[in-house]
Amino acid sequence: MFELLTTDGSSKARLGRLTTSRGVIDTPVFMPVGTQGSVKALDPRELQEMGTRIILGNTYHLHIRPGLDILRQAGGLHRFINWPLPILTDSGGFQVFSLASIRKIKEPGVEFRSHLDGTLLFLGPKEAMEIQRLLGSDIAMVFDDCPPHTGTPAEVRAAVERTMRWAAECREQPRAEGQAVFGIVQGGSHAELREECAKAIVAMQFEGYAIGGVSVGEPEAEMMKAVEHTVPFLPENQPRYAMGLGTPAQLVELVARGVDMFDCVLPTRVARNGTAFTAKGTISIKAGFNKADLGPIEEGCQCFACRNFSRAYLRHLLNVGEILGLRMVSVHNSYMFIKLMEDIRAHITAGTFGDFRRDYAANYVPSEKVLAARGETAVGGAG
Amino acid sequence: MFELLTTDGSSKARLGRLTTSRGVIDTPVFMPVGTQGSVKALDPRELQEMGTRIILGNTYHLHIRPGLDILRQAGGLHRFINWPLPILTDSGGFQVFSLASIRKIKEPGVEFRSHLDGTLLFLGPKEAMEIQRLLGSDIAMVFDDCPPHTGTPAEVRAAVERTMRWAAECREQPRAEGQAVFGIVQGGSHAELREECAKAIVAMQFEGYAIGGVSVGEPEAEMMKAVEHTVPFLPENQPRYAMGLGTPAQLVELVARGVDMFDCVLPTRVARNGTAFTAKGTISIKAGFNKADLGPIEEGCQCFACRNFSRAYLRHLLNVGEILGLRMVSVHNSYMFIKLMEDIRAHITAGTFGDFRRDYAANYVPSEKVLAARGETAVGGAG
Repeated sequence: MFELLTTDGSSKARLGRLTTSRGVIDTPVFMPVGTQGSVKALDPRELQEMGTRIILGNTYHLHIRPGLDILRQAGGLHRFINWPLPILTDSGGFQVFSLASIRKIKEPGVEFRSHLDGTLLFLGPKEAMEIQRLLGSDIAMVFDDCPPHTGTPAEVRAAVERTMRWAAECREQPRAEGQAVFGIVQGGSHAELREECAKAIVAMQFEGYAIGGVSVGEPEAEMMKAVEHTVPFLPENQPRYAMGLGTPAQLVELVARGVDMFDCVLPTRVARNGTAFTAKGTISIKAGFNKADLGPIEEGCQCFACRNFSRAYLRHLLNVGEILGLRMVSVHNSYMFIKLMEDIRAHITAGTFGDFRRDYAANYVPSEKVLAARGETAVGGAG
Repeated sequence: MFELLTTDGSSKARLGRLTTSRGVIDTPVFMPVGTQGSVKALDPRELQEMGTRIILGNTYHLHIRPGLDILRQAGGLHRFINWPLPILTDSGGFQVFSLASIRKIKEPGVEFRSHLDGTLLFLGPKEAMEIQRLLGSDIAMVFDDCPPHTGTPAEVRAAVERTMRWAAECREQPRAEGQAVFGIVQGGSHAELREECAKAIVAMQFEGYAIGGVSVGEPEAEMMKAVEHTVPFLPENQPRYAMGLGTPAQLVELVARGVDMFDCVLPTRVARNGTAFTAKGTISIKAGFNKADLGPIEEGCQCFACRNFSRAYLRHLLNVGEILGLRMVSVHNSYMFIKLMEDIRAHITAGTFGDFRRDYAANYVPSEKVLAARGETAVGGAG
């Protein structure tokens, strides 16, 4: 399923190729997030035009709405949302632990109340895999216990142990035809727990491995540590996925640490507030300095928004509440993340990733506001 | 500028062709409304794909935001919003009389406070034409006095007289290169006032004539009368435009009464509530009966939404608040209005418009809710 093509000389960055029945995915890759069956504000044509090769869907959200009956009748998630390329589905573990207000952790799973209407629901490894089988995603994720980053060592250990037991159970469940399953490594920022969890999960032989328990509100340094403590114990010849990350500058650093796959709600979430990503950091399109700026969001950008509209027009649209404004910033931001991965792949191929990484870090000024938005828990539809 | 190609044998319906420097427009035509420089939720590509040949912009709204400085710097409205085809701009008369909270009608125009922030502003024939000259619209409208449909005969007469005086002044103002100007006939549902106003306005020799004072909350019968009392006094060889109208069934009837051009906020406005137009009337996409309906909004419809998405998916998107839902219903509804005009033109050409009109009226069940939405005054951005 995964072919490792090149390894960077200056870092752990890797060039790879992931093959699914619905298409080939060059890695490192960014996967736009379609939590509720739609990448917020974008349509499938716009996504394909900007080079999207795989999107995310979410088990927890889709299970609640529209529900499995409809998805079954539609013939799976791809057909329901009219997306012909690969889909990775999250197992719902993260959402159960972050969104559901009342819950009871039992050995076969979690009893919880829907964040929406309080309905009592149950998700465990068996249920999560069965739902993902029905959704027919190309990559399913195991059901894990994702503890808060403020958890005590004992709490994180309990979550790691539960994650390992549940992963073993997920491994035995039936799958959709051609469906790959990725294991998830938990363990917070504790080196020994990460190692223990990674070794146990890898021993179960999944098609890929994710680093979970990141993007849960922890400081950047802790997040980087979690990744550094995990990657050495993951097999070279399988894909590695850092869940829920990150800003463009973080993505470059995570690639340098050997991660191949990313998903993040940032590009579309901050777009709805009028914040656009550029190679130098974020800018507020609504800001006064854009009032008469007839240039694009980013000079040279080939996205649909930058090819068609000026900052001044987008600022006007956002100021008067026209939907086209947030649509076009969503297009630009999503394209920017996709294009960053294209550039990274080109630099790994050319052997210039080290220079690119250094320049990127030097030029990119992270915004505190945007870093904070990454950690926000979006009740009722992340993304 | 206008060529009358065919007149229907069974009614006053006409087939025509309007030539502007930015493109040829076959009539009868529907013009999507882009009040604030954006047809709500749609982008220019979507509009062109569905066959849009001309859109509307609004002098009042664009004057307030983004303001004339920006529009001047951008080189006019077309370039600011990236719309290469014709634009018709409304003069702002309707908005001044319906939105501005405090106003004083003086002979050179109207002093009013912005609905947005209370800023004291002034619009009169001279200002409205100057703004439209700067916007560079292909068709500018005269600045008129649009009285409420509840006005007394004396009030309507005063509005008609002011409309005639202001039209004469508009006629003398400088224009943008190639810009046509249309006169507006007021007079409510009073036959004699409509006749008097029409004759006076026609004598001023504009490039086209609009029927104003309709779509202001009046009952349908009164609206039809206003049109019937006006059309006989308009020249055969010039385009006729019924402002702000209407539902699909009303458009068919208005074409039969000799009207060539239409604009209406209904397709995009009701879409944002999840209401879709079909040839048989409106349906609520959110309704329970669409829950598992995997067919398109309308069988056989060739719009982007119907070619790509099911009612069940659109219902889900609307229910969970995903922007793609209202986007796609906006696409469908706007396409439906454009396509209706294509069908009407084909039937006039084939000599079958009489049959088409009869069948349409028999099949279309008007919705009271939708009829009411047409009359709503949208503060802060109609459309």
